Amino acid sequence: MKSILIIGAGRSSTALINYVLKVAKERGWFVFVGDADPGLAEKKINKHPNGRALWLDVTKSNDRKDIIGRADVVVSLLPAHLHLEVAHDCIKLKKHLITASYVSQEMYRLGDEARNRELIFMGEMGLDPGIDHMSAMQKINEIKSMGGKITSFISNTGGLVAPESDTNPWHYKFSWNPRNVVLSGQGTAQYLENDKLKFIPYNRLFQEYRTLEVPGYGEYEYYANRDSLLYREVYGLDKIPNILRGTIRARGFCDAWHALIKIGLTDASFPILDSGNITYHELMEAYLPSNNISGSVKERIARMIDEDVDSDVMKKLEWLGLFRKKKIKLPNASPALILENLLLDKWKLSPGDKDMIVMQHQFEYELGGRQKQLTSTLVMKGDDNTNTAMSKLVGLPMGIFVRLVMDGKINSKGVNIPVMREVYEPVLEELKEYGVNFIEEEKDITA
Amino acid sequence: MKSILIIGAGRSSTALINYVLKVAKERGWFVFVGDADPGLAEKKINKHPNGRALWLDVTKSNDRKDIIGRADVVVSLLPAHLHLEVAHDCIKLKKHLITASYVSQEMYRLGDEARNRELIFMGEMGLDPGIDHMSAMQKINEIKSMGGKITSFISNTGGLVAPESDTNPWHYKFSWNPRNVVLSGQGTAQYLENDKLKFIPYNRLFQEYRTLEVPGYGEYEYYANRDSLLYREVYGLDKIPNILRGTIRARGFCDAWHALIKIGLTDASFPILDSGNITYHELMEAYLPSNNISGSVKERIARMIDEDVDSDVMKKLEWLGLFRKKKIKLPNASPALILENLLLDKWKLSPGDKDMIVMQHQFEYELGGRQKQLTSTLVMKGDDNTNTAMSKLVGLPMGIFVRLVMDGKINSKGVNIPVMREVYEPVLEELKEYGVNFIEEEKDITA
Repeated sequence: MKSILIIGAGRSSTALINYVLKVAKERGWFVFVGDADPGLAEKKINKHPNGRALWLDVTKSNDRKDIIGRADVVVSLLPAHLHLEVAHDCIKLKKHLITASYVSQEMYRLGDEARNRELIFMGEMGLDPGIDHMSAMQKINEIKSMGGKITSFISNTGGLVAPESDTNPWHYKFSWNPRNVVLSGQGTAQYLENDKLKFIPYNRLFQEYRTLEVPGYGEYEYYANRDSLLYREVYGLDKIPNILRGTIRARGFCDAWHALIKIGLTDASFPILDSGNITYHELMEAYLPSNNISGSVKERIARMIDEDVDSDVMKKLEWLGLFRKKKIKLPNASPALILENLLLDKWKLSPGDKDMIVMQHQFEYELGGRQKQLTSTLVMKGDDNTNTAMSKLVGLPMGIFVRLVMDGKINSKGVNIPVMREVYEPVLEELKEYGVNFIEEEKDITA
Repeated sequence: MKSILIIGAGRSSTALINYVLKVAKERGWFVFVGDADPGLAEKKINKHPNGRALWLDVTKSNDRKDIIGRADVVVSLLPAHLHLEVAHDCIKLKKHLITASYVSQEMYRLGDEARNRELIFMGEMGLDPGIDHMSAMQKINEIKSMGGKITSFISNTGGLVAPESDTNPWHYKFSWNPRNVVLSGQGTAQYLENDKLKFIPYNRLFQEYRTLEVPGYGEYEYYANRDSLLYREVYGLDKIPNILRGTIRARGFCDAWHALIKIGLTDASFPILDSGNITYHELMEAYLPSNNISGSVKERIARMIDEDVDSDVMKKLEWLGLFRKKKIKLPNASPALILENLLLDKWKLSPGDKDMIVMQHQFEYELGGRQKQLTSTLVMKGDDNTNTAMSKLVGLPMGIFVRLVMDGKINSKGVNIPVMREVYEPVLEELKEYGVNFIEEEKDITA
């Protein structure tokens, strides 16, 4: 009996496990789900006849090898830094490997060994990275095959909250790793404009956001990611003069996040020794310069960040409870951890809440002497706070790819990301059945 | 014959080696100077009969132990991360150890072992940290012994350029590690004001500078260090409501450095791939937002950082050559490395140039119902660009302490910083012979 091993039964695994179990039943495969908490794995398998939960501590090398040895294909949902151990086992035991994480340099170095053993190690097989690569590549190859020359590619993704579940002034709720949201953008964003490298340092990143239009949903903001240049060659866009990848947020979000950065609340580099005893109000006061003394702490913060005290930005800060005389109760926490902990509560999806994924690619290309603009937009909402659009769009591409590998449909070998036609065509086609549809708008922008 | 081992013969070693050789001759000691470049060590020893240069690669454990084994006292001028290996050898071989570096947590953990073997491991025995600790402790104990209650302690140090050698609009030249100057302040500065913790994040640090008066030299600026709270207990100031340690710069420096931060030039976190081929002008252009398009790059930068195009800040940026169409010629360099490399040339001490160290402690204390303010200031200039005030003030305290240990004058054991009377009294006393004199000003500030 052919079998699949899924390592990790956390909150991002539901859609993947459900998909793989469904296909396993049709094909007569077996699905092992290994987790340090086998109860969690059992719950996800829900007594499905083709599934079995396993107790797996991935840090124990022998256990790990034993379990990996039984599978034909391994899917790792572990935190990114743990994939490499699994990958080494997969090389030794000759198993295919699939993850949704960014492919590290160390992972790429396993490429030859994987290829020599006729294995495929597929990374970045989730949503962002994942569906963004696949949908972009499909469009890029379509335009190229028409004879078009792509001059600009701007690709944005955001994990947001659906308008009907939007109940807060930030118009944001968490559907993914809160820590990544809090630390997002630290460093310098790089992109390419008119054939020139452009940089935006963190201290200006959320100030220099731009806007985009989501058909039927109005205007959103986006800020540049650090990795825009990384995919230029992989996408076959070596000579493109304009490329930018970014993150989508609701209108008003970026200005308010910029205020949090300016205050100093996103710094994760040091622990605040007395953070177990002070209030949010005291924390905010601690950031005020000593020459800024008249008025309430809220008024003084507003002055410091150049905002009117009743501006939209200040309303967002106030809504978070940053001026409340309530204890933080988190000892030795960094400012970023205090902020994350506060947002976890404030930006939580309630049981009936729907999240919403927006992905938009904007292409400009020349064809037959004309200049065209093509916008391709995906909007997808979740069912509730468990079956989120996020977990579906991260899990389903991996599940579908597992099926393709098990069915022998994939010829690519080595360490890859999903930019090849034999991957993106069937995956995107099947994703349509789950409501993953891109809406296109094209116009002539010849000057 | 008793002997001393100095590890490292780099540019900061001159004053130390000269001092130790002089005393060695009087006392009949022997001085080994070990360096990976024995020619450098020979040059520093300059055929002195009591000195010998040794070839020493500190990464080679056996060679290191062999050489350490011959000495009674070891002085390590190695980069801070290499001290620990030497310290472990000193434990095993029962040798005293002296450094000018910050004492790491790992080093402090050797305290019991050093104490059990009756050894003293003295760290932070240079200028800052070093003379700052000693001069502060002397004053603190003096005020306490009078019955005074210290309510505020602000301590600032700056390695600057002497007015007579000040030939540039930044009024700054390098007398110490340029990399540390470029990366200074990243993270969040912490200090204590009116019994409350205060924070300043990097993005506001150089904007929120304050000023101080140096007798005879006028007004200077200072910005807060990250470590102000670290010494509260060690200094015996546990309950003090105000404590701040800072770094001194000339007037106008902080605003201009803030501009470099805002532009993004102090980020060391990523390499600029084409930095080998582009010009400084192109680098600056790369930081401009795309909606800021009218005028020259210089005018656009001025607009971005809210400066008039002919402001003092812009003049400083222009003087650095940031708007010149000259190639950077430094491939794969981070913005911070490009900036460091540019400054290395622009802020170099010329042969006849004198550097200048300024250290100022400001105390406020209550005594007999009165509120007093005491300012204690050290100003010291170098002789030229080799015999800098910096190298003297870093090297001499270590040298004097070597003598005290060799003479059996030090009873303290374990891992320490120089805050005990048996250390600071004789060291500060002898430093006076080298021109290290603090000028005091006291006034009554009772409201």
